[in-house]
Amino acid sequence: RQLFRVGEDWYFLFALGVIMAMISFVMDFTINTLLNAHRWLYQELGDYLVLKYLSWTMYPIALVAFSTGYAQSITPHSGGSGIPELKTILTGVMLEDYLAIKNFGAKVVGMTCTLAAGSTIFLGKVGPFVHISSIMAAYLGKIRTSVIGEYENKSKQNEMLVAGAAVGVSTVFGAPISGVLFSIEVVSSHFAVRDYWRGFFSATCGAFMFRLLAVFNNDQETIMAPFKTNFKIDFPFDLPEIFFFMILGVICGIISCAYLFCQRWLLGYIRRNKLTAWLMATEISTASGCLLVLSKVPCARQAAETHPHPGVLFLLLPAGLPMLPAPWRRWAPLPAAAGRGNCPFPDTFAGCQPLLRGEGSMNIIGINLQGPLSKPVYSALVALLLSSITFPPSLGQFMASRLTMKEYLSCFFDNQTWGVLSQNASLARPLQVDPENLWMEWWDPNITIYGSLVIFIVMKFWMLILATTLPMPAGYFMPIFVYGAGIGRLIGEVVAFLFPHGIKLDGAANPIIPGGYALAGAAAFSGSVTHTISTALLVFEVTGQIAHILPVILAVLIANAIAQKFQPSFYDGTIIVKK
Amino acid sequence: RQLFRVGEDWYFLFALGVIMAMISFVMDFTINTLLNAHRWLYQELGDYLVLKYLSWTMYPIALVAFSTGYAQSITPHSGGSGIPELKTILTGVMLEDYLAIKNFGAKVVGMTCTLAAGSTIFLGKVGPFVHISSIMAAYLGKIRTSVIGEYENKSKQNEMLVAGAAVGVSTVFGAPISGVLFSIEVVSSHFAVRDYWRGFFSATCGAFMFRLLAVFNNDQETIMAPFKTNFKIDFPFDLPEIFFFMILGVICGIISCAYLFCQRWLLGYIRRNKLTAWLMATEISTASGCLLVLSKVPCARQAAETHPHPGVLFLLLPAGLPMLPAPWRRWAPLPAAAGRGNCPFPDTFAGCQPLLRGEGSMNIIGINLQGPLSKPVYSALVALLLSSITFPPSLGQFMASRLTMKEYLSCFFDNQTWGVLSQNASLARPLQVDPENLWMEWWDPNITIYGSLVIFIVMKFWMLILATTLPMPAGYFMPIFVYGAGIGRLIGEVVAFLFPHGIKLDGAANPIIPGGYALAGAAAFSGSVTHTISTALLVFEVTGQIAHILPVILAVLIANAIAQKFQPSFYDGTIIVKK
Repeated sequence: RQLFRVGEDWYFLFALGVIMAMISFVMDFTINTLLNAHRWLYQELGDYLVLKYLSWTMYPIALVAFSTGYAQSITPHSGGSGIPELKTILTGVMLEDYLAIKNFGAKVVGMTCTLAAGSTIFLGKVGPFVHISSIMAAYLGKIRTSVIGEYENKSKQNEMLVAGAAVGVSTVFGAPISGVLFSIEVVSSHFAVRDYWRGFFSATCGAFMFRLLAVFNNDQETIMAPFKTNFKIDFPFDLPEIFFFMILGVICGIISCAYLFCQRWLLGYIRRNKLTAWLMATEISTASGCLLVLSKVPCARQAAETHPHPGVLFLLLPAGLPMLPAPWRRWAPLPAAAGRGNCPFPDTFAGCQPLLRGEGSMNIIGINLQGPLSKPVYSALVALLLSSITFPPSLGQFMASRLTMKEYLSCFFDNQTWGVLSQNASLARPLQVDPENLWMEWWDPNITIYGSLVIFIVMKFWMLILATTLPMPAGYFMPIFVYGAGIGRLIGEVVAFLFPHGIKLDGAANPIIPGGYALAGAAAFSGSVTHTISTALLVFEVTGQIAHILPVILAVLIANAIAQKFQPSFYDGTIIVKK
Repeated sequence: RQLFRVGEDWYFLFALGVIMAMISFVMDFTINTLLNAHRWLYQELGDYLVLKYLSWTMYPIALVAFSTGYAQSITPHSGGSGIPELKTILTGVMLEDYLAIKNFGAKVVGMTCTLAAGSTIFLGKVGPFVHISSIMAAYLGKIRTSVIGEYENKSKQNEMLVAGAAVGVSTVFGAPISGVLFSIEVVSSHFAVRDYWRGFFSATCGAFMFRLLAVFNNDQETIMAPFKTNFKIDFPFDLPEIFFFMILGVICGIISCAYLFCQRWLLGYIRRNKLTAWLMATEISTASGCLLVLSKVPCARQAAETHPHPGVLFLLLPAGLPMLPAPWRRWAPLPAAAGRGNCPFPDTFAGCQPLLRGEGSMNIIGINLQGPLSKPVYSALVALLLSSITFPPSLGQFMASRLTMKEYLSCFFDNQTWGVLSQNASLARPLQVDPENLWMEWWDPNITIYGSLVIFIVMKFWMLILATTLPMPAGYFMPIFVYGAGIGRLIGEVVAFLFPHGIKLDGAANPIIPGGYALAGAAAFSGSVTHTISTALLVFEVTGQIAHILPVILAVLIANAIAQKFQPSFYDGTIIVKK
């Protein structure tokens, strides 16, 4: 009993790390399987372009709609990243139910589906996993309280939450040190060294277990970095290259300001715009339900015919799709409040209003379904748009859209210089993605790799922002990380193009390593969007090479200085908009 | 004016980093020159063993005595590391004059001499450099206050001090991230993320400048890690090796407990023991001066003859040596207080007491000299002992004592397996240290490299502890870092000996990399002695390779758990003893 008391904390921290690592691994495994299934399906369909298009778009649409519907039906808290809310909790505001264990399943299942939708939707895992991990930490904290029989202790709970956040980040990347630092930077403004140690312990257990499972699963021969790079470290970069790294920092800083501004604007716009606001409303109102009721009652067809509002018809179609998983029992006891509230098309339904009022039970069902259903509709529409754009035979071929998120990162961090490789005589893009030559996805005879990268950066800019509005469990760190790597890769390739034999004239030629710029870009862009600097360390932990440390840090600091001067961080921005 | 106000902090943080980097570089340059001079002198003396011995011992003795005398004559605060005092200041206790600019010169000059004494004395740079950097930070803070014309602000001062500590660590190692983390772990218990950012900015400027100067000085072709390793990262370690890393962590934890215990005991013993307490006394008393008076007045010889106390004779000899540099004007106005106070040998001087009393002016001079002189005597005696032991033709040959501190680290982190190399037929140790084959210094036909490493670890254990009692500016981090690397190298070599073809039986043979164990040992031992875990990151920043991250962190955590359970940290221990 005494021994247990002495070490009580450590047992729970250990358990927290190990459990989260297992969850993270199982999630990754499932996601991978689903992604492979999609890829297989897409390839098996051969030359039937319509079928290919359907398989390419329907898969993410279904997953995203399910993810939104399932998670929203369990709790409205499950949408988005979760980090802003955790930050709010740690400052002392108690968000009720936010850390309830029921959110756990919603987030885990929802996020698995989100991520299985792949690079089309382009979302990540970090934020929700921090939330999941905090839920688990809070739960373990409760278990501890009841096992030991002591009173609940606010500061101990917060300690557990901080450790949970650290575990969340580090079990996603298998990066213990930067996991702790990133979580600290993101969720706290002050913290105790003691907490940092506890987080560190827990995060190490988690990261170790996570990497260990990868070895047991034969993904890797031994414990190694998840995105292991293979740079020549004898001469990682020449001194004058520092200037290019600094320029990269400035570019990342400016783009991140634009990104933050646009993202906040779009979040606000969606709240102001009638149609989207109605779709995204969390509260249940009779009016919100009117559209679904339409499809049930005889008046529906009549309304659609007499008032052929395009929005109505458009929404009628996919609204039925994600009906299946939505458990509506939660909404059943709600009264069928009269009135149309904030229905965006009052005129459209003017004729059938009495019918709606009179159709008692039907009306209630309609109302009850709306809560979990209108958001999936929005998600499905966005997914349709995004997946149509990334469809490989269309615009997708110019942005390497066949790659998964992990493959994007792997090829950006590649040691090769694409500009040099693409000069090689006869190239043809392989029918399937070639894991050994991921860069081939970027190659196009007309626009060259530089053009592809530019299109990627331009298109993904607004696609990223649009994806952040999806009301489902999703992380926004990984996308900006990959996007930043893309910016860095472009700059790196341009520098390598300008100085094909390296910069120094005397002595041996040391060619530019564009992968190093990708590292710096990933760290600088993700760092400036989130207002953190530990991303500089993160890139080294995930790639397993640390040779570029100083230029990367410089780029991160410059990008951060610009972003912090002009824009609130991504998470603070979300808090501001949600207020 | 407005611009300046907005960015005021950043300018000063930038200046702090750059100035400290330059000082660090100039110090390193000077130390290197002095070390090379010593090495050259030692080698030029050829086969004259006595001369060799004298050159080997006198050089460090003179430097250490000068360092002690010079630094102590300026301020009694200059002794030791400075980190415990900084920690005290940051908790709110104002140690007067501790951050006065006059200490700056004392520490810089004193530490340069200390480090120029080389691996014989086996002391480091971190602690005093943190102190120097804080002094500079406090000074810059004062300048800022007067330039801007605002009132002094306690919290702003502390912010500057924290940044100063970070800069201090990072400009020594050229390691920005771990520099910040280590300084935070060592000097604070709580801190603000804002301070962490400021420290990070400043530390990066410092580390960048520091590495840049190395490039300009043609030490390196481009910016690289100071102790760059060259491990094969394709297969850094096999999974079962994790157990050996854990065992290494346990060993480091146990040894660090023993080290901390013995170190604290010795510090206490030196305060209790009459002779040493008298030598180390900071206060000036008539009694303390009596010995030096002896050499001036006629009574001296008489006293020495009638009471031939070994201590007296022993101390008479070297007492005159470091007289020259000691500026005694500071002590001149003190009254020649009568009485013998805490003189350890009252009987010895019983006969000459009247004479001492009467010899007014002479007495005063004697008294005045004692303050800055008795400590150098102690330092010189310790240096004599240490350098006699490390004299290469004697015991030194079994502990590779011809290597400098940097060479120790470089060879411990070596990618080669010494056990394999030493099986190679006809080996003979080179007459001079061969920079390409530093490991040869460890090779001895009789005791093999394993024996050498064991002797190194056993002997350096108490030599390290003894060196920490020296009352001069000196850091204690680097020695424990090197010592830990030695422990790790021994374990690594033993593992490589037990499993010559690697552990895994199926598949390709992946031999053990003992250098990885050296990394883990360095991080685990230094981490557990100082109760920090950022040393795990430090080893990667200084070696430029991060492949061993998980086993190193595990070793550090285990060692830390053991050390934190049983012993206070090195710095806390010092605070406890000094209280």
